[in-house]
Amino acid sequence: MVKICCLGAGYVGGPTMAMIALKCPDIEVVVVDISVARIAAWNSDQLPIYEPGLDDVVKQCKGKNLFFSTDLEKHVSEADIIFVSVNTPTKTRGLGAGKAADLTYWESAARMIADVSKSDKIVVEKSTVPVKTAEAIEKILTHNSKGINFQILSNPEFLAEGTAIEDLLQPDRVLIGGRETPEGQKAIQTLKSVYAHWVPEDRILTTNLWSAELSKLAANAFLAQRISSVNAMSALCEATGADVAEVAYAVGKDTRIGPKFLNSSVGFGGSCFQKDILNLVYICECNGLPEVANYWKQVIKINDYQKNRFVNRVVSSMFNTVSGKKIAVLGFAFKKDTGDTRETPAIDVCKGLLGDKARVSIYDPQVTEDQIQRDLSMNKFDWDHPIHLQPMSPTTVKQVSVVWDAYEATKDAHGICILTEWDEFKTLDYQRIYDNMQKPAFVFDGRNVVSMEKLREIGFIVYSIGKPLDSWLKDMPAVA
Amino acid sequence: MVKICCLGAGYVGGPTMAMIALKCPDIEVVVVDISVARIAAWNSDQLPIYEPGLDDVVKQCKGKNLFFSTDLEKHVSEADIIFVSVNTPTKTRGLGAGKAADLTYWESAARMIADVSKSDKIVVEKSTVPVKTAEAIEKILTHNSKGINFQILSNPEFLAEGTAIEDLLQPDRVLIGGRETPEGQKAIQTLKSVYAHWVPEDRILTTNLWSAELSKLAANAFLAQRISSVNAMSALCEATGADVAEVAYAVGKDTRIGPKFLNSSVGFGGSCFQKDILNLVYICECNGLPEVANYWKQVIKINDYQKNRFVNRVVSSMFNTVSGKKIAVLGFAFKKDTGDTRETPAIDVCKGLLGDKARVSIYDPQVTEDQIQRDLSMNKFDWDHPIHLQPMSPTTVKQVSVVWDAYEATKDAHGICILTEWDEFKTLDYQRIYDNMQKPAFVFDGRNVVSMEKLREIGFIVYSIGKPLDSWLKDMPAVA
Amino acid sequence: MVKICCLGAGYVGGPTMAMIALKCPDIEVVVVDISVARIAAWNSDQLPIYEPGLDDVVKQCKGKNLFFSTDLEKHVSEADIIFVSVNTPTKTRGLGAGKAADLTYWESAARMIADVSKSDKIVVEKSTVPVKTAEAIEKILTHNSKGINFQILSNPEFLAEGTAIEDLLQPDRVLIGGRETPEGQKAIQTLKSVYAHWVPEDRILTTNLWSAELSKLAANAFLAQRISSVNAMSALCEATGADVAEVAYAVGKDTRIGPKFLNSSVGFGGSCFQKDILNLVYICECNGLPEVANYWKQVIKINDYQKNRFVNRVVSSMFNTVSGKKIAVLGFAFKKDTGDTRETPAIDVCKGLLGDKARVSIYDPQVTEDQIQRDLSMNKFDWDHPIHLQPMSPTTVKQVSVVWDAYEATKDAHGICILTEWDEFKTLDYQRIYDNMQKPAFVFDGRNVVSMEKLREIGFIVYSIGKPLDSWLKDMPAVA
Repeated sequence: MVKICCLGAGYVGGPTMAMIALKCPDIEVVVVDISVARIAAWNSDQLPIYEPGLDDVVKQCKGKNLFFSTDLEKHVSEADIIFVSVNTPTKTRGLGAGKAADLTYWESAARMIADVSKSDKIVVEKSTVPVKTAEAIEKILTHNSKGINFQILSNPEFLAEGTAIEDLLQPDRVLIGGRETPEGQKAIQTLKSVYAHWVPEDRILTTNLWSAELSKLAANAFLAQRISSVNAMSALCEATGADVAEVAYAVGKDTRIGPKFLNSSVGFGGSCFQKDILNLVYICECNGLPEVANYWKQVIKINDYQKNRFVNRVVSSMFNTVSGKKIAVLGFAFKKDTGDTRETPAIDVCKGLLGDKARVSIYDPQVTEDQIQRDLSMNKFDWDHPIHLQPMSPTTVKQVSVVWDAYEATKDAHGICILTEWDEFKTLDYQRIYDNMQKPAFVFDGRNVVSMEKLREIGFIVYSIGKPLDSWLKDMPAVA
Repeated sequence: MVKICCLGAGYVGGPTMAMIALKCPDIEVVVVDISVARIAAWNSDQLPIYEPGLDDVVKQCKGKNLFFSTDLEKHVSEADIIFVSVNTPTKTRGLGAGKAADLTYWESAARMIADVSKSDKIVVEKSTVPVKTAEAIEKILTHNSKGINFQILSNPEFLAEGTAIEDLLQPDRVLIGGRETPEGQKAIQTLKSVYAHWVPEDRILTTNLWSAELSKLAANAFLAQRISSVNAMSALCEATGADVAEVAYAVGKDTRIGPKFLNSSVGFGGSCFQKDILNLVYICECNGLPEVANYWKQVIKINDYQKNRFVNRVVSSMFNTVSGKKIAVLGFAFKKDTGDTRETPAIDVCKGLLGDKARVSIYDPQVTEDQIQRDLSMNKFDWDHPIHLQPMSPTTVKQVSVVWDAYEATKDAHGICILTEWDEFKTLDYQRIYDNMQKPAFVFDGRNVVSMEKLREIGFIVYSIGKPLDSWLKDMPAVA
Repeated sequence: MVKICCLGAGYVGGPTMAMIALKCPDIEVVVVDISVARIAAWNSDQLPIYEPGLDDVVKQCKGKNLFFSTDLEKHVSEADIIFVSVNTPTKTRGLGAGKAADLTYWESAARMIADVSKSDKIVVEKSTVPVKTAEAIEKILTHNSKGINFQILSNPEFLAEGTAIEDLLQPDRVLIGGRETPEGQKAIQTLKSVYAHWVPEDRILTTNLWSAELSKLAANAFLAQRISSVNAMSALCEATGADVAEVAYAVGKDTRIGPKFLNSSVGFGGSCFQKDILNLVYICECNGLPEVANYWKQVIKINDYQKNRFVNRVVSSMFNTVSGKKIAVLGFAFKKDTGDTRETPAIDVCKGLLGDKARVSIYDPQVTEDQIQRDLSMNKFDWDHPIHLQPMSPTTVKQVSVVWDAYEATKDAHGICILTEWDEFKTLDYQRIYDNMQKPAFVFDGRNVVSMEKLREIGFIVYSIGKPLDSWLKDMPAVA
């Protein structure tokens, strides 16, 4: 019986292994982690991760051919295939700080594998890593191998939060990269046969090692670029009177471009886009390709520009000062239907408003006050690191209040910023909100959520990204 | 009977209203302020502001048709014409920090006016504000108006410290800007008729709103530019052996240029010049005019350059180090006959000397030790804000002593810096001073106050801005 | 009998005066200093300075015609020739900070001399000073002279640590600069006759004042430049497969260039090179010669580049992270056979490694833990100032351990950096070291000390500056 061991019981490792266990009754799957608490949670009824459908999958296999354990050495030593799914945060200090991926955890994992292995192994790179990482790992394994043969494969994950189980069940594609040697090709086939239990052959792509590694970064770069391109257009639309929604719709009708991922907004967020692009940029720089590095850096630049533009719109509309004014922020998560705030544009927008001395009142249906305070006092990339290493601000950030009701947040406010596209924001009683606000009352819609027409009828001055501007806003230029 | 109410009992509002009351017995004038202490002072014999002739004017009207009160709402509500004379400090954080004017107080005033008004009002902008402010204020009044009609006028002040009463009695010009609508023109006439009580018609200029606002900034920019131009010449004079006094006199003889405001010095100071120019620069930037912004920025740049040049002259003359040396500073106010130290060049010069580890001993006939310590520990623009908000340095700045006698200040000093043109500095006993100083003894005259010939005869090495250089100074180059 | 007094009993003054006393029995030499402790040490058997042969020289003359005293005024007043050998550290604040020499001590000395002198004196500049200093000193003496005549000479020192006595006995050249007046020439002859007791005439060069001052800076600039040139070549050698040792040997065979001072390394250090070049750069800037300033600045730039390159090699070789890894540093002094760590490249290399979160274990046969901790927590140029003024870090730098054994330092280390060319590092038991290290085991040889062939045979991955690269290193690019 084939034995699989997965190092890292986190957001990627857990669901992926559960799905393999479900679809391959003939394979024994063990997920190991050094965190006793996390393994305990997987073994309880209260899984440490929330994904629609995950509970059900785990329930079907746990104890049958799916196990969770803290005994790393035993299970690694016994496994035929080892998935490595550890964190690769961005380096915060030293060479490549702020750009390069920190492979410390990966390296430790590799040394441990080399240490405990007594038989040949296939090692599968599941974390997002820079191109050439597999090669480096190979070297570590080889230098510490005592004659054992290791084959390393790259098998990047393509899961989106909230749809992970769906993405695993019916993936767009499964990508497996390996060495072009006979041994490498054999290892590829072994892993391919695992996925082939439920994924159609034509969706399982096999490539060389570096192509697989690069494809993950490339896919995210291409996606983020679509957003930045639309956002770049949004600024021009505002200046010329075009409507970004009309433009995006027309552009997306071109079948060579396609309709998805073309919504203009206050900027993209999430744990991958910025991080992967910076990593890509760093690899380009290391390889002496400054032109290419600069090209991809633009995607980040426009995202930052969009967030700045939004803050400038808010401040300049309100007579160039928000000092002492109450600003309601509706939505803090990086997208709707999640509580994830990693790299959410709301962080930069709030920091910008606080920098101008505003009083900010935040409401998000899923994000805790704790999380918001931590985000606003954190440096960039810190969310990348384990939570106990994150700085807890001695006192919470002043000037910020977190409330649990949109009406509470907007009471006596001078303006409202909508930063996440939660559905509930479409159906708020805006007349009631208007009546309780200072006048003139402003709405700054960073997600094209509200109806400009209706709100203007009520009396609001409305700014919606990429839409023809209110005359009020045209008269209020400002620069940083 | 026409009723006038003035918001803000400060340096501008107080004297201006007193003069109106004096000249218009048919008008009732009330000055209101939220500071109980300030209003109490106006109501006492010890006015909170010193201006030659002010006491007399106030005495004649107080209790007749001139009143001071803290009851803002009552008097605003009753007034026909409301002068707004509140602070518009420079923003210290956020959008436009260090450049843009902070309209927070103005906005609050406008909201209050809208709130308490029950009848139509003429609102007069008396503070120095950016172009387009009146328009913004109009919008606030309109959005909160409950059907009341407000006409906004711009009526910038042109008072100089020390001659405010004189300037009010016989102004070069009174400027009134208003809307080009019939209602606007009517409001202009109403205000014009107030001033016409004592100002000749041809000195009362009426313009559109933005011209009036801009004229104030423009006038200060043109004045400051004259100084920077002469100061720029002073550097060239020193390098070539020309004498800046001769050059300025010859240039000023040209009737198209005129003789005033052409004295070379260590730099200009005062509460308006730098602030208004930065504001002008910011407006240019906001309006997409970087070339114009840059043009006016040069005026500030040369002023900073002049102050740096002076410090460099001091340090480089003294063997490139003033570490541990005693430097006497004579004069700290930004001009003679005032105790005002706002933006005085003495601050930057002293900071420069302290940065090189000098021991500085300061004497100024009108400035308190307290004020000097506050100035030297303050950030830029902080004087703009109410005094209780200003940081009081935990310990006074070390290395600085403030004394009340020029002889005390210069005792055992290695060098003397003259930074204000107080008349008394011309008649000091320089032989006595020389005898008590370290040798070689230096005088750095930042105001062309002393006689170079006489001091050189005594034995001093003298540097006077824009004068042919001592051979000593030529041999001592230095760079920052 | 001629009397000589030397101000400053430090590294230069002490040995130089001892040699003069030894060679000129007809001259009385007194070395004075304000530090009671230092003078006491000179008067004891435990001299405050260690130089091979110094003890012997001092022993022969002390009490005969060589004396050490704290009574500055008496001996200065009695002397015919006064050597001034005080510190001229780099300015840390104010005009020219980080570049210009701080002449505070020199100026005080000059004022004191002027103060106590009752007869004509020859004043000899022995410290390293900027060009034109002698002239400035002259001015101070003259302005305070009370009719006494002072002749100032420049007589720069050219001593190397560890060979000072040898350098004094058989100097390459003795340089004496003075005024071109008859009095100046007479003073030059007087000093020349002192050295002529033992130095051949043709090695005593006489020049004008400024040439002598400049020659000292120039000589160090030329020497440092040779090193930077070889180091610049080392980078190209690594990139192309040439061997810097072969290239340097071939180049040095050209008699117009000469074989000395052409060893490639991790960078130059020591108290003079960087300091003198920065001073030279500053003088060029002050004299309006930016092109020349920039030319010499390159020497520093390449030195910094070389240190950075070394750190980057270390980090990038080890999978782009040294976070949490133990790095052994062998050698900390700026060159072998000394405990002097001033400006040693080891400081920057260690800071670079610590910046990447490495754990550093240091072994140097002559440098104390205390000194290392002080160096790593110090700002640049601080070593220039008296030790009691140097900041003692509240807690020692974390992550650094200092051990007294190379085997201890390398135990469990991931890599070794050799930063000083101590002979003992050539004969370590590298097999034993290898066996106790993590694998792959790295050696980064910053001084071309070890045999790459032998170490590679053992199993090390070796990087040696300027040598053809291991394939391992070629595959590991990185950028800052």
